[in-house]
Amino acid sequence: MSARTSLAALNAAPPGLFAAFAADLFAGAAWVGERAAAARPFATLAALHEGLMAAATAAAPAERRALIGGFPDVAAEAAGLTDEEAAALARSAAAYRARHGFPCLICTARHGPEAILAAVAARLAGPPEAEEAAALREIGHITRLRLLDRVEGPGAPPAAGRLSTHVLDTHAGRPAAGVALRLFALDRAGRRLLEARTTNPDGRTDAPLLHGAPLRTGRYEIEFDLGPYFRARVDAGIATLFLDTVPVRFGIDEPEGHYHVALIATPWSYTVYRGS
Amino acid sequence: MSARTSLAALNAAPPGLFAAFAADLFAGAAWVGERAAAARPFATLAALHEGLMAAATAAAPAERRALIGGFPDVAAEAAGLTDEEAAALARSAAAYRARHGFPCLICTARHGPEAILAAVAARLAGPPEAEEAAALREIGHITRLRLLDRVEGPGAPPAAGRLSTHVLDTHAGRPAAGVALRLFALDRAGRRLLEARTTNPDGRTDAPLLHGAPLRTGRYEIEFDLGPYFRARVDAGIATLFLDTVPVRFGIDEPEGHYHVALIATPWSYTVYRGS
Amino acid sequence: MSARTSLAALNAAPPGLFAAFAADLFAGAAWVGERAAAARPFATLAALHEGLMAAATAAAPAERRALIGGFPDVAAEAAGLTDEEAAALARSAAAYRARHGFPCLICTARHGPEAILAAVAARLAGPPEAEEAAALREIGHITRLRLLDRVEGPGAPPAAGRLSTHVLDTHAGRPAAGVALRLFALDRAGRRLLEARTTNPDGRTDAPLLHGAPLRTGRYEIEFDLGPYFRARVDAGIATLFLDTVPVRFGIDEPEGHYHVALIATPWSYTVYRGS
Amino acid sequence: MSARTSLAALNAAPPGLFAAFAADLFAGAAWVGERAAAARPFATLAALHEGLMAAATAAAPAERRALIGGFPDVAAEAAGLTDEEAAALARSAAAYRARHGFPCLICTARHGPEAILAAVAARLAGPPEAEEAAALREIGHITRLRLLDRVEGPGAPPAAGRLSTHVLDTHAGRPAAGVALRLFALDRAGRRLLEARTTNPDGRTDAPLLHGAPLRTGRYEIEFDLGPYFRARVDAGIATLFLDTVPVRFGIDEPEGHYHVALIATPWSYTVYRGS
Repeated sequence: MSARTSLAALNAAPPGLFAAFAADLFAGAAWVGERAAAARPFATLAALHEGLMAAATAAAPAERRALIGGFPDVAAEAAGLTDEEAAALARSAAAYRARHGFPCLICTARHGPEAILAAVAARLAGPPEAEEAAALREIGHITRLRLLDRVEGPGAPPAAGRLSTHVLDTHAGRPAAGVALRLFALDRAGRRLLEARTTNPDGRTDAPLLHGAPLRTGRYEIEFDLGPYFRARVDAGIATLFLDTVPVRFGIDEPEGHYHVALIATPWSYTVYRGS
Repeated sequence: MSARTSLAALNAAPPGLFAAFAADLFAGAAWVGERAAAARPFATLAALHEGLMAAATAAAPAERRALIGGFPDVAAEAAGLTDEEAAALARSAAAYRARHGFPCLICTARHGPEAILAAVAARLAGPPEAEEAAALREIGHITRLRLLDRVEGPGAPPAAGRLSTHVLDTHAGRPAAGVALRLFALDRAGRRLLEARTTNPDGRTDAPLLHGAPLRTGRYEIEFDLGPYFRARVDAGIATLFLDTVPVRFGIDEPEGHYHVALIATPWSYTVYRGS
Repeated sequence: MSARTSLAALNAAPPGLFAAFAADLFAGAAWVGERAAAARPFATLAALHEGLMAAATAAAPAERRALIGGFPDVAAEAAGLTDEEAAALARSAAAYRARHGFPCLICTARHGPEAILAAVAARLAGPPEAEEAAALREIGHITRLRLLDRVEGPGAPPAAGRLSTHVLDTHAGRPAAGVALRLFALDRAGRRLLEARTTNPDGRTDAPLLHGAPLRTGRYEIEFDLGPYFRARVDAGIATLFLDTVPVRFGIDEPEGHYHVALIATPWSYTVYRGS
Repeated sequence: MSARTSLAALNAAPPGLFAAFAADLFAGAAWVGERAAAARPFATLAALHEGLMAAATAAAPAERRALIGGFPDVAAEAAGLTDEEAAALARSAAAYRARHGFPCLICTARHGPEAILAAVAARLAGPPEAEEAAALREIGHITRLRLLDRVEGPGAPPAAGRLSTHVLDTHAGRPAAGVALRLFALDRAGRRLLEARTTNPDGRTDAPLLHGAPLRTGRYEIEFDLGPYFRARVDAGIATLFLDTVPVRFGIDEPEGHYHVALIATPWSYTVYRGS
């Protein structure tokens, strides 16, 4: 981060340096930068990325194939897999390469392990042209994140998602403050704690549960401790509360989306919805 | 069941036989029946049970103590505990007997393992008079169930709870038919499948999830498979659905209560409440 | 009502009497009964009605036209219109007859005034064949109600709708008993009180709000007096309640449908849905 | 507005000018300013107002009575009443003055006509000491608003409420954009349109429905045109929609409160709650 280049410096750089910058993003393909250099200056980071991708997409078929071939396949990038899953993924990735002649590219920062396994399985059987287009789309995602990591300047393209929550107490007609909650990532093997928070006086968490990066697609769960919250406010003389820890299980499908998971609760009812 | 006596036969029985019947319910205390016999005929099963309990409660202190002492303590009755929990319960039950001079009685058909452990812990420190009253209440619960098991006739006292559910699809404005759901009992060790059902055209299960016996107090979870239901009806082109399996976790506190757990859902929201 | 014929008697009646019965339903067209008589005996009221309608539908074009022409047009049947609306309806009905050569038939027991005005306006421009089919469908509705009014027997065809309600208090986790509510029919001119009720201990009305006849399509409103209900239970020290009288406005589109309007409420929130 | 004094200028003003400023707020009572002047400088507008009110409250009983007597009574201030209501209010205000010996003060910018009539009726019978305290509280509200109108500077005391709304479409899982809505003030005579808006892409109105001033306590209604919104998105082949214009009726009790009225809707259901 400390060594990020400025957009202005890139716009003013000699063509050779601009090409070297592009090569760093595009798996060594300096020609992407050579061809995009003439379109400078780029007013925004988004325009810079679009300019580079336009050069990559307009290349001759053989160049495009070589570009795709320069990126590491998904099996080399995916993290968080069990040994069995990693082995299965390696087999699928090899089969993909054998069938299509280029590596199976997926921007693994945007998807959870299960979604990656499902995506590779689905794409294995796709028609070659569609797969070449898919590979270029994934290169777009990969290089966008690399670019934002290396360059600073105005007009960044959207590359981060957000997960937030809000708890309302409609028993008392106010935000539910002081509710402990935990966010988990779910997969077949079980669940993994990502965040533990407590709601503030507005019933929200001080910062979003997830933000500043793409959301990894997959299944999640938030556990809300409504029991202690209402126990402290409503003396109902009940040994076993109707609602105690309330689990809310949901899926994330848009890595750059905003997922607002609202919970509106009383001791006897609750409503969950994807809000905004 | 096949050998159940009729209320009419009990009303007409010689006093000795009626006393023997009472002895069977009241841990050998034939005197309960001897004293209640004069109040016959009882018009209903509820009145029969109340007559017997009135005789038991009106007894001299020493008799009452002897009656309580005749029932097996909770450690001998509780089922579904781990070895560790059983050992802890045995220790608590022994401490209770040492402190109060009579066994800790709990009608274990009305409570789950965790609720029993919590109840014994809470009652261990209670004042002796309150505990004697609590023991008589539990004898009332225990003998009510025994009586209903052995006698048939009109006017049975309420001794069964009911757990039902209803799934509504407010995306389409109709009952959600064909939704698979599973009911689990929860405890610290995990969860245990009790029932697996599918909703009928009215969005309900053909029979209640639980009925015909007291509900065991404790925590439960129903998993509703909304994902397949909406996937088949709404083509949203979504790889990872927002709502797929929806877990609803709730507590049961009234063994003879009616718990109706309603779920009103769309692909993006749901409402849960204790209905009627 | 007292003079209703039995299905058995109709099945056994001489052909002439059966034809007279049909003539009474079908605006004097005894031939409908003459042709349907041979299909007797009919096992159910629904089969009887279907048999008569089959004879009517299978008639030669000129006969069918004559049959349609024998029914009074909608302008003669519609009730509850203002003078202006009645005049407009009469003009539309005359235009319809001029265009199609037969009266505009609508079973007015199944639709409210606004829905009738809208339907005539929509049908005025319809193609003649579609209008002839529509007229026969309306004759089906009209004669079904007449038949049920005059004949008793098993297997009545569905000819009644139902409007019911249910109020749940999720502040306390129980049905909301003693809530006053009022049902109004809405139209452009204002609203008309149809029913005033109070919820029973189960949070429902003792009888459905509407039942035993087709529901008239149109717009309705129920006012629920939540304010007094919660004021008596929750002392919030509030001069002006957040929720006091809660209006729920809804449309009925299916005359033979079941509309269950559920209200789940706290002093600070409520949920309305079409239930089942 | 253009002629607002700065807090700094007031802090630096000669005592005579500061007293004149206070006299303008406090119905001619320059002594309030004379006594508060020594506490200058005030760091915030809130502290200035508190300083003035402290001087007013600490005055001798006769001075306090004279101060209260200098303000016009509620009958002279209330607006938006029918002739009948104004006459009734004048009678009540005269009775109040006869009973308590000072005018009935209410900051009419904070309450709607019905709430004012109810408040005067309730206060007429109050004990004199409580009424003197109530009068001083109302002087606090009246002078706070006058002060904010005449002085600019940091740290303004809260003197404005806010009414906002948000419409979510849980049929599609997104904010409901383009929904027309209308806000009305309700009273016994009927309703009066205050605002007509349309939701923006986030399902909210661009500016709050009410803000920048106290909310007048009373009853309100928002009509949301859900019918056209869903009609354009969901082709259900329905002549009379279940939900068309949805009225939400609610009360405002806290003039400086934030009322967020959320509507979460499908074509078949909706949830309303006071959010945050």
